Amino acid sequence: MAGGAGAVEELLLVATSLHDLYRRTLLDDVMPFWLRHSLDARDGGYFNCLDRDGSVFDTDKYGWMQAREVWTFARLYNTVERRPEWLEAARAGVGFLLEHGFTRDGRMHYRLTRDGRPVHRPWGIFTECFGVMALAQWARAAGDDGALKRAMRLFDTILALLEKPRAMAVHAYGVRPMESHAIPMMLLVTGQELREHPRAEEVIGDSIQRILFKHLHPEERAVFENVAPDGSLHDSCEGRCLNPGHALESAWFVMEELRHRGFRPQDSHLLERALLMVDVSMERGWDREHGGILYFVDAKGRPLEQLEWDMKLWWVHCEALYATLLACRASGDERYWTMFGQVHDWTFQHFPDPEFGEWFGYLNRRGEVALRLKGSMWKCCFHLPRALLHCMRLLEELQR
Amino acid sequence: MAGGAGAVEELLLVATSLHDLYRRTLLDDVMPFWLRHSLDARDGGYFNCLDRDGSVFDTDKYGWMQAREVWTFARLYNTVERRPEWLEAARAGVGFLLEHGFTRDGRMHYRLTRDGRPVHRPWGIFTECFGVMALAQWARAAGDDGALKRAMRLFDTILALLEKPRAMAVHAYGVRPMESHAIPMMLLVTGQELREHPRAEEVIGDSIQRILFKHLHPEERAVFENVAPDGSLHDSCEGRCLNPGHALESAWFVMEELRHRGFRPQDSHLLERALLMVDVSMERGWDREHGGILYFVDAKGRPLEQLEWDMKLWWVHCEALYATLLACRASGDERYWTMFGQVHDWTFQHFPDPEFGEWFGYLNRRGEVALRLKGSMWKCCFHLPRALLHCMRLLEELQR
Repeated sequence: MAGGAGAVEELLLVATSLHDLYRRTLLDDVMPFWLRHSLDARDGGYFNCLDRDGSVFDTDKYGWMQAREVWTFARLYNTVERRPEWLEAARAGVGFLLEHGFTRDGRMHYRLTRDGRPVHRPWGIFTECFGVMALAQWARAAGDDGALKRAMRLFDTILALLEKPRAMAVHAYGVRPMESHAIPMMLLVTGQELREHPRAEEVIGDSIQRILFKHLHPEERAVFENVAPDGSLHDSCEGRCLNPGHALESAWFVMEELRHRGFRPQDSHLLERALLMVDVSMERGWDREHGGILYFVDAKGRPLEQLEWDMKLWWVHCEALYATLLACRASGDERYWTMFGQVHDWTFQHFPDPEFGEWFGYLNRRGEVALRLKGSMWKCCFHLPRALLHCMRLLEELQR
Repeated sequence: MAGGAGAVEELLLVATSLHDLYRRTLLDDVMPFWLRHSLDARDGGYFNCLDRDGSVFDTDKYGWMQAREVWTFARLYNTVERRPEWLEAARAGVGFLLEHGFTRDGRMHYRLTRDGRPVHRPWGIFTECFGVMALAQWARAAGDDGALKRAMRLFDTILALLEKPRAMAVHAYGVRPMESHAIPMMLLVTGQELREHPRAEEVIGDSIQRILFKHLHPEERAVFENVAPDGSLHDSCEGRCLNPGHALESAWFVMEELRHRGFRPQDSHLLERALLMVDVSMERGWDREHGGILYFVDAKGRPLEQLEWDMKLWWVHCEALYATLLACRASGDERYWTMFGQVHDWTFQHFPDPEFGEWFGYLNRRGEVALRLKGSMWKCCFHLPRALLHCMRLLEELQR
């Protein structure tokens, strides 16, 4: 696929075959891999650490990976097809989480043994956010009102935790408070998944403001991962850190919200900034030497703390696919169709594993496989199927 | 330099020119770089984050990096030459640490701002171990009895912390206790630096036992970073993790102790195991495809948690240089001379920066520079000058 002239017309022409590719990848390749290899028939829940061929190389279970996989199975059941195997797979994960995943005070464990004994204490709010998403989708799939109530209470727990940030940052003394982009991002998507919660709209609106007016700096053409509480920048490794994949993911969360509101004229200033996030992240992140999107970038071109900064990660490219496609839909600007084509080509040329199915997660800068695993404490059944699902849906829409 | 036949004779022939190379690198290249760029004339202590050309890219100061640099300057002053600039450079670091580096209860801060305000709470025992090493060398350099007493008290603090391991592992619940190789390693070298402490010999002996009889598994031909308290292995990412550079460093700490005891016949079973650590680490770690030593290896060839597993790090190669050279000296076996040659050639071909001096720290698997920094929260004036100094000393000995 090549972008370029007459791109919007081209989009309509190729949308059907693209839709078919995304659908086949999702339903005939990715989901069967996880159904076949990740379910733990003995202890419930999912194995997270899967080698290239799906064999398990570590039996520990990570709270947020369990919750994300529940979300994926339940979401597919709710929006694609009522396949019983998806409902049962989601049930296996929900059962494990409800039995073992929570602390007495309603938080969620970060890491558990195969049989559900906690290994590490709760950490941040991310496991809980994915927990809300999992329970909310499950509640819809199974018509389970108890799960919905549980999701509501868990959202309350998250909001209460955010009131006492010191309780979460156990190592920091607070001499230099910084706000992390990850927090409004996660709150935004969690709120979108649980609109039933009385504070969801407020949380969504506030998160969008923080993302677009604190972390995005148009004058610097960059989205900063860490800013001072007033949004100002700090000239340090932490303060200069850009994560283009994160910024692209965040941009589509915002655009998704604006789409949910029907792309209202009064939101056009927000849309403009969300589109700018896509532009600057592709400018900053695209590797002109080897193609693909870098994992971390220093805003001033200084060395990074992160040794893995130049790797090419599957999730970064998954988020870039949907961010550029949704930007195309939201703006009608063919520039984003060209970007989508660029990301699509590199991604489908480098990540899929034709031999054992599913996608590799970690490539080196040149695009060669650096770690052959399919699942880990970070990679699970989430970013890839979510991006394929969202792209597939949008390509359907574009065909109409 | 090539290893091989008649290697011990060859060693004697080339020892002089090698000695000259190590001495020049240490005294004319590495130390001038740190003297020129790392001293903070305004607030004292050292800048840690130095770009390729020595310019500062982050002004935070890391406790263990400060202490390590003090150790290096003081050690050179004590063992190479009484250069006033080395004494003054050490004084600058000691002054900063004594003024800002300690908590009220005698622990040491992990991270501070440029002007000495703590950013992060103390972490583990490593900063304190490097603190002991710094104060002990400084005490000898400056004839400062107060510093020696402070080092003695700090060693007491470390030993007391180890009595309550739960206080250090803030995130773990303890369902699966594991012992880390890093602990006996650090205790061994700290004890060696402070033989004045009444428990030093006991700590050294106990650490050697733990390294050689719990972490080294001859039947697996591997040194495991994490083992169960009884020394048994755990089939998980953590339990299978090998760090060949760590194992080589640990091996020479042990050999150094045996040399200190005059290579007594009753220690020959310990020497045999220390030499085996060198053999198995080179077997496991040497990259047959691109040369150099891998950062992390899974004992069963499974994927690793560490994305940076295949990078080539300066410190790994520094430790390998001295471990293989000392193994050569300790055993008289030319096999280790061949190994030393192999490590020496790859290291001197890939790490030095002929343009701005000092060495690059982080290469990719192919040996290309991945991060051009010279100093960071992990890299400072320590591993490289220490290895150059120790190799230089040993090459002097071999010439006699």
